[in-house]
Amino acid sequence: MTETQETKGGSPSRRALIGWGGAGLALGAAAAGGAMAMAEVGNDVDPAAADMGGAVEFHGAHQAGIATPVQDRLHFAAFDVKTDDRAEFVQMLKDWTEAARRMTAGRPVGEGAYGGLAEAPPDDTGEALGLKPSRLTLTIGFGPSLFDKFGLHGRRPAALADLPAFPGDNLDRARTGGDLCVQACADDPQVAVHAIRNLARIGFGKVAVRWSQLGFGKTSSTTPGAQTPRNLFGFKDGTRNIAGTESDRLKKHVWVGDGDGGDGDAWMTGGSYLVARRIRMNIETWDRTPLQEQEDIFGRDKGEGAPVGKAKEHDKPFLKAMKPDAHVRLAHPDSNGGITILRRGYSFTDGTDGLGRLDAGLFFLAYQRDVREGFIPLQRRLSAHDALNEYIQHVGSAVFAVPPGVRDSGDWWGRALFSKEA
Amino acid sequence: MTETQETKGGSPSRRALIGWGGAGLALGAAAAGGAMAMAEVGNDVDPAAADMGGAVEFHGAHQAGIATPVQDRLHFAAFDVKTDDRAEFVQMLKDWTEAARRMTAGRPVGEGAYGGLAEAPPDDTGEALGLKPSRLTLTIGFGPSLFDKFGLHGRRPAALADLPAFPGDNLDRARTGGDLCVQACADDPQVAVHAIRNLARIGFGKVAVRWSQLGFGKTSSTTPGAQTPRNLFGFKDGTRNIAGTESDRLKKHVWVGDGDGGDGDAWMTGGSYLVARRIRMNIETWDRTPLQEQEDIFGRDKGEGAPVGKAKEHDKPFLKAMKPDAHVRLAHPDSNGGITILRRGYSFTDGTDGLGRLDAGLFFLAYQRDVREGFIPLQRRLSAHDALNEYIQHVGSAVFAVPPGVRDSGDWWGRALFSKEA
Ligand code: HEM
Ligand code: HEM
Repeated sequence: MTETQETKGGSPSRRALIGWGGAGLALGAAAAGGAMAMAEVGNDVDPAAADMGGAVEFHGAHQAGIATPVQDRLHFAAFDVKTDDRAEFVQMLKDWTEAARRMTAGRPVGEGAYGGLAEAPPDDTGEALGLKPSRLTLTIGFGPSLFDKFGLHGRRPAALADLPAFPGDNLDRARTGGDLCVQACADDPQVAVHAIRNLARIGFGKVAVRWSQLGFGKTSSTTPGAQTPRNLFGFKDGTRNIAGTESDRLKKHVWVGDGDGGDGDAWMTGGSYLVARRIRMNIETWDRTPLQEQEDIFGRDKGEGAPVGKAKEHDKPFLKAMKPDAHVRLAHPDSNGGITILRRGYSFTDGTDGLGRLDAGLFFLAYQRDVREGFIPLQRRLSAHDALNEYIQHVGSAVFAVPPGVRDSGDWWGRALFSKEA
Repeated sequence: MTETQETKGGSPSRRALIGWGGAGLALGAAAAGGAMAMAEVGNDVDPAAADMGGAVEFHGAHQAGIATPVQDRLHFAAFDVKTDDRAEFVQMLKDWTEAARRMTAGRPVGEGAYGGLAEAPPDDTGEALGLKPSRLTLTIGFGPSLFDKFGLHGRRPAALADLPAFPGDNLDRARTGGDLCVQACADDPQVAVHAIRNLARIGFGKVAVRWSQLGFGKTSSTTPGAQTPRNLFGFKDGTRNIAGTESDRLKKHVWVGDGDGGDGDAWMTGGSYLVARRIRMNIETWDRTPLQEQEDIFGRDKGEGAPVGKAKEHDKPFLKAMKPDAHVRLAHPDSNGGITILRRGYSFTDGTDGLGRLDAGLFFLAYQRDVREGFIPLQRRLSAHDALNEYIQHVGSAVFAVPPGVRDSGDWWGRALFSKEA
């Protein structure tokens, strides 16, 4: 647990916290104030303690949504900046922070707007009223292009490297890049969609959504002992991932350390770097591939998820028993000098392409301490050799610096970046 | 309850029911047989009895997925026929029926394929292993264009009318029409996506997906007493809907009756007609609309969902208190000669359009006894007068004849249609 986290009982319904005065029917408007008991589950606390309705603490040394046990659903949005007024942008970040603080606690956006302002648009769009906090986390990131703006030139961390073109990449510009991003994860998709939409509304005129992605099923586990979810190829995914409770590996591979960068990067201490890749999976071809071949490609069996030659999912992989081009053999730290990333991806299905095939795949999200030592060398290797490449294609890409957590009620997203210099 | 339904306890995990022999690690392969205790919740039985993992009975006088209490998630697919071999198509319908029977019970597709056929593609794609049945229902429908094929000309029911062009329609051909459809509803989206994908795989070469739609949140209630869900405009949706337990209204407005059509339509007795409309909702404009105006547009208040001038959601609406162009006033049976449909729609969010706006809205699904007396006259009225039209646009459309239920293990989807003549 980080310094500022505490765990309390109970889990309020959003419904109980709001009254709309529009037709003169205030539903307990008094409850919309600040003095409520809130369910708070620390963002890297044992998830067994969290029921589906629980709230994840927004404040902490690190942003929630990284080491936090993976929630069921995702709505991810990349934004472009539309203003060149630094003060206006900073004010928006403060407003976003306040809205995020409220929404992650299961409260609607806006303190005092529920008492009869019928002539104004509601402060909150309303579709999450009556829903539980659903473990909502909101995680902000800053893309490389943001550092060309607002006089931030000198502040771009070296660890936020541009991704090179990898063999096989077929990137759609409309699903690539972005000045900033927000990752919304929750157990209820309506809660995640509601959060992104309200941030977009607050940001109107200052930022615009560049692209967004809905993820319907998690493809990673960050919870030891939990059942490992399956990806759209039918395999367990996330078996060997960093768990949110492994403070040593998190410290070594995920959180940016004190003296990591040069002078200018100190604002990232406690943060992380996020790589997002939209990976199409050719479901139809895969489904006609023999089982043995499928298992050879991953180096694990399909039913249990055990490494080749082993009996159980969590048995230690013996890499040499796998084919040289097996995904797990190539991706395993032992075969690539120890590269370790935290995967937090989601399956997506976005209808059908023009050829009658499902537009489905993996929205791959990986957190790491330095992109140059995480995703880039790993993907160099995979894109060149992985047997899986025959069945997948990377079609979207982005990279973001994810700042440290918001410490307390006076702090805001990006404060360290925007405060220290002109 | 229909004749063939029974309710039993327990809810098996898909994981317990399968063994994959690929790497020689059969996980209880014996369990894949037929002799298991299954959780079966009748498809129009009190949902309070159904836990999240429950199974909905597949067999019955009516297909499940219509009067069945609305599940949380949807995957809907429209297919086009790719074969002109009637026997081949009929065999596919039989194979689909068997697969649907198994999947809705939480079992993988394919009885005997889990004992070591490493050189063959698996019978089931696998991503739903370990997941509960999640109240999965699979509902098939036949589109008007199917009746131009396989010598079915004389069998098209008059009640399956082509939809006229309505004012304001902006239909995308790529999201319109289809020779047949499958509506998959479940509480877990991975279970719904898995089902459609496996049907597409079984249909390979005989049918191809024309378009598909994922729905992430229900926008209708068919369960008296349950909390009414909210749509993306933040309003409760489904307040005045036909509940699955109202056998009188179902009989009058939803189920096709004995002598409904002419001679040729008898195969539809016990079935229904489905209209699907993809309706974009202009979220960004709506979010800048004053609360009072929003409430005037629907004729209900936003917080509670009460009709204008009334205190409670379920109070009887007094239509004359509403603006003449209010959605509820226009759609209410009392103002339009009694037209009544069963709504079963879902919210969708499919990323972003080229203009930075969320591609979001309502995937409207409505069941009725006769399209000429349900959706068509109602939408004529709404498309001409509804205040809501300023904020929405119909961008996809389809209509299907939904045959009666599969009676027992010897029956199959479409039997009555395909059996009675050459
Ligand atoms: C659609 C694309 C992909 C699929 C379907 C996929 C699937 C899998 C599966 C099934 C496993 C084995 C279970 C586990 O330990 O989680 C795995 C492991 C792993 N994958 Fe992927 N993966 C994909 C793309 C990637 C990419 C792009 C990277 C990084 C560049 C990556 C990095 C890893 C790593 C580091 C492991 C753990 C290896 C170990 O420590 O044993 N994967 N993946
Ligand atoms: C995006 C489009 C739409 C939205 C957001 C919407 C929303 C709503 C809402 C909030 C209600 C009130 C609560 C309730 O009784 O369910 C309602 C009622 C209703 N709507 Fe819609 N609706 C839409 C499109 C349609 C369409 C296309 C039809 C049919 C052609 C329709 C038919 C009805 C009916 C029959 C009622 C119940 C009226 C009553 O009996 O009081 N709606 N709708």
